[in-house]
Amino acid sequence: MDELEIDAVAEVELDDPVLVEGLPGVGHVGSLAVEHLLEELEGESTLVRRVYSREFPPQVSVEDGVSKLTCAELHAVSVPDGRDLLLLSGDHQAQTNNGHYVLTDAFLDIAEAFGANEVYALGGVPTGELIDEYAVVGAVSDESLVEGLEDAGVEFREDEPAGGIVGVSGLMLGLGERRGFDAACLMGETSGYLVDPKSARAVLEVLETMLGFELDYETLDERADEMEDVIGKIQEMEQQQQMDVPTDDDLRYIG
Amino acid sequence: MDELEIDAVAEVELDDPVLVEGLPGVGHVGSLAVEHLLEELEGESTLVRRVYSREFPPQVSVEDGVSKLTCAELHAVSVPDGRDLLLLSGDHQAQTNNGHYVLTDAFLDIAEAFGANEVYALGGVPTGELIDEYAVVGAVSDESLVEGLEDAGVEFREDEPAGGIVGVSGLMLGLGERRGFDAACLMGETSGYLVDPKSARAVLEVLETMLGFELDYETLDERADEMEDVIGKIQEMEQQQQMDVPTDDDLRYIG
Amino acid sequence: MDELEIDAVAEVELDDPVLVEGLPGVGHVGSLAVEHLLEELEGESTLVRRVYSREFPPQVSVEDGVSKLTCAELHAVSVPDGRDLLLLSGDHQAQTNNGHYVLTDAFLDIAEAFGANEVYALGGVPTGELIDEYAVVGAVSDESLVEGLEDAGVEFREDEPAGGIVGVSGLMLGLGERRGFDAACLMGETSGYLVDPKSARAVLEVLETMLGFELDYETLDERADEMEDVIGKIQEMEQQQQMDVPTDDDLRYIG
Amino acid sequence: MDELEIDAVAEVELDDPVLVEGLPGVGHVGSLAVEHLLEELEGESTLVRRVYSREFPPQVSVEDGVSKLTCAELHAVSVPDGRDLLLLSGDHQAQTNNGHYVLTDAFLDIAEAFGANEVYALGGVPTGELIDEYAVVGAVSDESLVEGLEDAGVEFREDEPAGGIVGVSGLMLGLGERRGFDAACLMGETSGYLVDPKSARAVLEVLETMLGFELDYETLDERADEMEDVIGKIQEMEQQQQMDVPTDDDLRYIG
Repeated sequence: MDELEIDAVAEVELDDPVLVEGLPGVGHVGSLAVEHLLEELEGESTLVRRVYSREFPPQVSVEDGVSKLTCAELHAVSVPDGRDLLLLSGDHQAQTNNGHYVLTDAFLDIAEAFGANEVYALGGVPTGELIDEYAVVGAVSDESLVEGLEDAGVEFREDEPAGGIVGVSGLMLGLGERRGFDAACLMGETSGYLVDPKSARAVLEVLETMLGFELDYETLDERADEMEDVIGKIQEMEQQQQMDVPTDDDLRYIG
Repeated sequence: MDELEIDAVAEVELDDPVLVEGLPGVGHVGSLAVEHLLEELEGESTLVRRVYSREFPPQVSVEDGVSKLTCAELHAVSVPDGRDLLLLSGDHQAQTNNGHYVLTDAFLDIAEAFGANEVYALGGVPTGELIDEYAVVGAVSDESLVEGLEDAGVEFREDEPAGGIVGVSGLMLGLGERRGFDAACLMGETSGYLVDPKSARAVLEVLETMLGFELDYETLDERADEMEDVIGKIQEMEQQQQMDVPTDDDLRYIG
Repeated sequence: MDELEIDAVAEVELDDPVLVEGLPGVGHVGSLAVEHLLEELEGESTLVRRVYSREFPPQVSVEDGVSKLTCAELHAVSVPDGRDLLLLSGDHQAQTNNGHYVLTDAFLDIAEAFGANEVYALGGVPTGELIDEYAVVGAVSDESLVEGLEDAGVEFREDEPAGGIVGVSGLMLGLGERRGFDAACLMGETSGYLVDPKSARAVLEVLETMLGFELDYETLDERADEMEDVIGKIQEMEQQQQMDVPTDDDLRYIG
Repeated sequence: MDELEIDAVAEVELDDPVLVEGLPGVGHVGSLAVEHLLEELEGESTLVRRVYSREFPPQVSVEDGVSKLTCAELHAVSVPDGRDLLLLSGDHQAQTNNGHYVLTDAFLDIAEAFGANEVYALGGVPTGELIDEYAVVGAVSDESLVEGLEDAGVEFREDEPAGGIVGVSGLMLGLGERRGFDAACLMGETSGYLVDPKSARAVLEVLETMLGFELDYETLDERADEMEDVIGKIQEMEQQQQMDVPTDDDLRYIG
């Protein structure tokens, strides 16, 4: 295994496509969003590239007993009445700082090869608590991109994201800018505790406006309802615990 | 020391051999199994390769005062009435993600050089508790391999192994598949707390069926009996502790 | 992204300049000091180099919604009636041992290219408690540099800094010496708990003496007053807590 | 700074010298021993090599205000009536697994260049408690070396060192053996809690027998007496604490 091995699985002609990155991160917002895009646009999408790397964790996932080596995948999508897309998904991010740089450059290389010069990095920004409203916070590689995104409902906040943006999403902006891409990071607010389908939906609604396609959200909403059941049950259990008489038992939870 | 140094200790002609990997892991199931194979098949086996690497921990083991640098060893085994074997053993796995990829590729290189294109990676899957029945859970690089293993008693479970397979065993499947090997990972159920000879036996019994040799299990069973004595004593001690009047002494066990 | 990418933003002729390093460290003394220099000498300073590296954390900072990839910056400053300066600033240090060596060599390469052969590395030495007097402790690459700095008020103490000097500041001395630089590290005493503008001022006063420029300290003193308000409030809160009746509540602060 | 930079400080002709390694480790036994050798044999010893590396921690030590970049040093010693020596000392070991391999190979390269093919790696083996008798435990690269060392009082114990020997000392045996060196590791028993001059003395007495020189131990014994005062005081303090009535105060010591 080299530092990078890129399998060309298929070739597809795309017209001025947009790279959309949905690797795992806070609340799994980005990966849920791209997963949903792949489901909804299945008829128009083709797996074109698999990226393997020594910078990915050395492991396989197993489904129905069959193994699959850690990789990232790119699907080419010809959307009727919308922008062509290059969808980036995967189960893991790089495991070292060096790895983040190497892999992001590889993804941008592939995007360039398909004629892309625009990137949307999708992720979550944790609020630290459960929320009802799902704003989408934005960051861009160049000021000229702010207005169009604000018109689509993205919020640009003065103090957010505090601490910047780390990992592939941040480097899509940082390296993308150096390589001539217009890059934007869309971060759906999320509690961060769980997989968050409502946050993913909020982000996808921005993309619909920016990129011209239309999505059905039924399956995402179903997942959201399941989530709410789970949250409800967790909250019940926590209240149950708080009603117990406080004892030295509490001390057993130290550490 | 280069990234890899492979000592050719001896040359042996093998006929369509099978690589069997038994590096340390959960419950030491794989390494116990290969150790037992090496003991039982001592007459037919020859040490052919030692693999040294900067990716192994920088240390020596000491036996009877004499040092031995960390390495992996490959033994060629011509089994009467069974498939030829290439047995991979060692005291340590690689210490970095990069190391796992580098070393697994090296082991597969050696296997190819000996004409092998089949791999069995042996390991354990932890149950989290002591058990009586020892199933062997399987994962394969290609669906076509499932049936033969199911016939040999291997179980393919929908949700296992959760989290996939990490390290050399996982990469034997992942890299093996990319390099044209038929690869299977056999994981004996084990409590994971101890070295588990019964789990190793369960895995070896599958190999007997698949590869045609017959093994005696007396020494492994002896180790299993020793283990049960140890477990029995630990359980007694734990019950002893629980019968004491609970006091602030408990707090001393906070880690 | 290569191991190092150096953007030449502008070219400026400097006469025997001095490299002044102010990357983040203890109490942010060095970075505050260089920040202040950049503010006060804005009219005479030009951004000349940006240094990007895989050794920097893979992230972008975000200001007003616009991203900026992690980098270090060098400003050339032609000071009227003082030594020319090359000011090194940035938001992050390298993240690995290898990275510290690589980046310090890169900074010294740039310094050499501008004709510099003197370095001041600015930092803090933690006292472990809040202080009233702000001494500046020194370390130099060669004994011949001690006297001049002592005359400027720098203290050379027998047991300090205990444990030496780690990171870029230490390597400015260590690698600087090997490469023919006269290097000095000026460390303002600081509690280490906070950003410390008084410590930064103490260090800058030494530089004024050594390098011939004059600075206004109004903005730094304002930050110092803000700091004192914050410290005052923290101290109040702590006294408040100590007056409470001691209970098992104390145990909640363990760990 | 390259991966390795070796400064040739002086050249000295040695006759079949022995490399003696005393880098920091358990109880600082090895480094104390080599320090003592350097003091006692000062008249006959010359600093010949300094080894710098990116694998050393990126820091300088500071003495009397003057910095010194992390390095290892080799001194050539022509001992009257004894074997010629190459003494290896330093303040730090490598910080990564790769670094241990790289640096040990560099030290063996230098030893070869001086005509050496014998190595003594000096260290400590922790007993876990304070002791009165100071045995020296041994490990060798080849069985043929056992007898000579046993005659000099070294003990070869069946179960020790458990876990083998890690770091430069272990690799002196492991890599030394592969490169044609006769290598021995002498480990003085030590509590491991402190710097242990008595353990260092025990190891040096073995070297005196093997290598033909004679040492005065006055300064080491003085350090040993100082150590005993310190230990005495620590023991008093601990007894003082145990005599207090046990209260919830104990909980404050939970780490």
